[in-house]
Amino acid sequence: MSDTSPRRRSGGRAARREARSRPLDAAVRPVRPGLPGGWYKPLSAQDVVRINDAALDALEQIGLAKAPPSAVEILTGAGAVQGNDGRIRIPRGLVEDMLARAARGITLCARDPAHDLKLTGTNTHFGTAGAAVHMVEVDTWEYREPTMQDLYDAARIVQALDNVHFFQRPVVCREFEDNAELDLHTLYAACAGTSKHVGTSFTEAANVPACISLLHEIAGGEAAWRERPFVSNSNCFVVPPLTFAEESCEVMEACIRAGMPVLLLSAGQAGATAPAPIATAVVQAVAECLAGVVYVNALAPGHPAVFGTWPFVSDLRTGAMSGGSGEQALLTAACAQMHQHYGLPGGAAAGIADAKLPDMQAGWEQAISNVMAGLSGLNMIYEAVGMHASLMGFCLESLVLGNDMLGQVQRCVRGVEVREEFISIDVMKSVVLEGPGHYLGHEQTLRLMQTEYIYPEIADRSSPKEWVEKGQPVLLDGAKARKAAILESGKHLFSPDLDASLVARFALRDLQRGPF
Amino acid sequence: MSDTSPRRRSGGRAARREARSRPLDAAVRPVRPGLPGGWYKPLSAQDVVRINDAALDALEQIGLAKAPPSAVEILTGAGAVQGNDGRIRIPRGLVEDMLARAARGITLCARDPAHDLKLTGTNTHFGTAGAAVHMVEVDTWEYREPTMQDLYDAARIVQALDNVHFFQRPVVCREFEDNAELDLHTLYAACAGTSKHVGTSFTEAANVPACISLLHEIAGGEAAWRERPFVSNSNCFVVPPLTFAEESCEVMEACIRAGMPVLLLSAGQAGATAPAPIATAVVQAVAECLAGVVYVNALAPGHPAVFGTWPFVSDLRTGAMSGGSGEQALLTAACAQMHQHYGLPGGAAAGIADAKLPDMQAGWEQAISNVMAGLSGLNMIYEAVGMHASLMGFCLESLVLGNDMLGQVQRCVRGVEVREEFISIDVMKSVVLEGPGHYLGHEQTLRLMQTEYIYPEIADRSSPKEWVEKGQPVLLDGAKARKAAILESGKHLFSPDLDASLVARFALRDLQRGPF
Repeated sequence: MSDTSPRRRSGGRAARREARSRPLDAAVRPVRPGLPGGWYKPLSAQDVVRINDAALDALEQIGLAKAPPSAVEILTGAGAVQGNDGRIRIPRGLVEDMLARAARGITLCARDPAHDLKLTGTNTHFGTAGAAVHMVEVDTWEYREPTMQDLYDAARIVQALDNVHFFQRPVVCREFEDNAELDLHTLYAACAGTSKHVGTSFTEAANVPACISLLHEIAGGEAAWRERPFVSNSNCFVVPPLTFAEESCEVMEACIRAGMPVLLLSAGQAGATAPAPIATAVVQAVAECLAGVVYVNALAPGHPAVFGTWPFVSDLRTGAMSGGSGEQALLTAACAQMHQHYGLPGGAAAGIADAKLPDMQAGWEQAISNVMAGLSGLNMIYEAVGMHASLMGFCLESLVLGNDMLGQVQRCVRGVEVREEFISIDVMKSVVLEGPGHYLGHEQTLRLMQTEYIYPEIADRSSPKEWVEKGQPVLLDGAKARKAAILESGKHLFSPDLDASLVARFALRDLQRGPF
Repeated sequence: MSDTSPRRRSGGRAARREARSRPLDAAVRPVRPGLPGGWYKPLSAQDVVRINDAALDALEQIGLAKAPPSAVEILTGAGAVQGNDGRIRIPRGLVEDMLARAARGITLCARDPAHDLKLTGTNTHFGTAGAAVHMVEVDTWEYREPTMQDLYDAARIVQALDNVHFFQRPVVCREFEDNAELDLHTLYAACAGTSKHVGTSFTEAANVPACISLLHEIAGGEAAWRERPFVSNSNCFVVPPLTFAEESCEVMEACIRAGMPVLLLSAGQAGATAPAPIATAVVQAVAECLAGVVYVNALAPGHPAVFGTWPFVSDLRTGAMSGGSGEQALLTAACAQMHQHYGLPGGAAAGIADAKLPDMQAGWEQAISNVMAGLSGLNMIYEAVGMHASLMGFCLESLVLGNDMLGQVQRCVRGVEVREEFISIDVMKSVVLEGPGHYLGHEQTLRLMQTEYIYPEIADRSSPKEWVEKGQPVLLDGAKARKAAILESGKHLFSPDLDASLVARFALRDLQRGPF
């Protein structure tokens, strides 16, 4: 208030204009990680209760097959019953007890605490996930095998994109024949490229110890790791319908013991491994994840876990997966409501394109499910960017474009603010009765320009005339340029010393690194 | 039940498969015109009341300028007050009286009654609107002037697209220098190409009589026209902020007297001709349309009118319109809630791309606002397909692709059915405990394949391998082929006699007609 420095006083229009062109403080940006959703509810309150009831029935009456010995011990020890058919059936009282123990309002930490994800209420976070076995090359339309370099580059790109909030490893590095090497290098490349929360998925329990050692060294010791675990593990602990996945269960137990948050992932496919009706597919996914909640909390009460109902859709004409369908968007949004019913941190998949290339089809497929997931208040929106060919292909140009799409999606999640100033007709009165008859240049308009409106980085809003004058820029060219610029400057996020030590200790392969 | 014909009995799998490949009856298609929305509410109940209050304040305290003499007479005759500043101010009691008179649950007729639009509750209908001054050529990227032929072709394409429910004239036929000729030919080309509901916008009141004569002849006489008026007129009766548009008001009065439903269109642009805050832009649009409701119902109580709050968004960096923004999607969805508050049939704009071409940007821009408009339960979703460059360009290939996008959007609007069969775990039990362990080929899966799931016509869902084997088909090529096929076979919908009579009587220019 008492600032009378010449600089301040010489301000006026030019200074205000200069101020508006500066990057915005995260606190006043129109969108940010964690915006609360919940505006959209595909299920009625009664539907939610009925789905919960049916899921509890399924656990009591059908149960899950093929529990590994450790899971049998943990689950029956808690009160589940193994039948003569070998299936583990879970009484509803046990589910309710374990729900009472389950961790709520968890934070998924990031190496940079500014990127922590607070999974409370209907807070929404958008990120990548996997595990594509192809990279999509936009110039040659080639679907080729991904490498560690691709994963590292993807991580550095995500690091640069404001509207992508976490990095679950989107691709499988196909140059590794040995799973232990794959798991180590995946972790290294992801953490070297981004300080946002990282998700991975270990292939075998035997690989976990070395990976945890790597994480301890990155964190600066086991205590530091356990205080702020910045990597979570995605566990496909069930093979729908209602069957445990032995290896993944063992991995999960190892992760939990190492203090790593887990994603309890049930990935059925409606019409194939899950029931064809959308509602029943949700029932099955919820039942499976509730079994996971019992499992985790019987082993380690309150261990951070994400309720990962990820039902997918089959194109029932072919049995193939269709992640870009309207049915997929409904499945995901309905799951978000179930998570909210339990008050548990939850995640599901949205933003998948069936399109092979980043074309118009990809745009509408990715957008419909992302905006519905966001409006429904899904905490963790996995697969939100870059995914093509129903999860078979990952595309870096699409990732960069997806950041613009997610900006618009997140603006929608933020919603319509109806605060006192915005419901007052004072500005209208002054503009219409006394003023210029339009709102251009009005103090309120200028003030809201950057805090209420979000602008794309690559997407083009010019008029046809301007577009021709600019030489008719093509969307993909803009994406390629932005990708190249990020990869040119995107930092390697380990210090040279730490990096050298990790490479030596874990015999890591070489990588074309960004600047340290 | 007693059908024992050999044909029926020889059925089995092949017959069932054949039955599944037949086109579905409209009644069992997974989507259809008029699906109810309302799942998504960007405004709280209190917000809605506050916006209504502010709009009534604006009408009482600010009022509208530049009413033409006829409007002054009609409005002051009903109880509005003209101030010394010439503005017409409307007491809230008068607004409430006229709201009580206003037509509700109206049907916008189509020449083919199967395409009638029933605007009740949260029923949703998606269609085109205008008025682009360019056609977008996808091969040359040219933005060229549209002709009557383009309009006619667009109408024939819309006629063939299941998920596009009405045809408001999307382009201005630029070869006509005389407005009277433009209005006549626009009407002729639209009605010759589609039997769905047609929207137009007459340029001057003087042109209305000839156009109405044309409609009488198409309908088979004035009485038939008045019984089922199959064309509505879009009236930009206000120039925001809060100023009447004299010519458009005169056109509207002429249309009302001729028995034509009207669209009361307020098209402000937030940050330019409307306030920058989203909520206040809605307040202004609602105020303007309420003035329209008073105007229409004072002139002709209960005359069918669509409450057309169409607030647009400015890119505040440039002042240019941005129809593809998240802010636009929020504005439109919030308006739908206001329409529902008044219980009036309502319409607004969604589906606009700022992208110049049907690329990935176009896909996400069109999809975000369309799905939010549908989920919000907007009765008339104008501009839903084919629109590029912030309404400057219309693209026939994009129109064809948009039909696939709208199919997915409409599937989302249909929602998650939670009926008894879908909440039962019986199928799950039989598949898991007794059956094959998967749902492929299950009777329920096959039964729901076509009634619960919607499939795209052009969008590609094949795997990368299949896609390569098919020669890597490009999305736009599919759109071009579909467009060509429709234009090849798309019928001219007047009989040769009627057509010849119209051409002679109204001196209509020549057209490359589809088959009679």
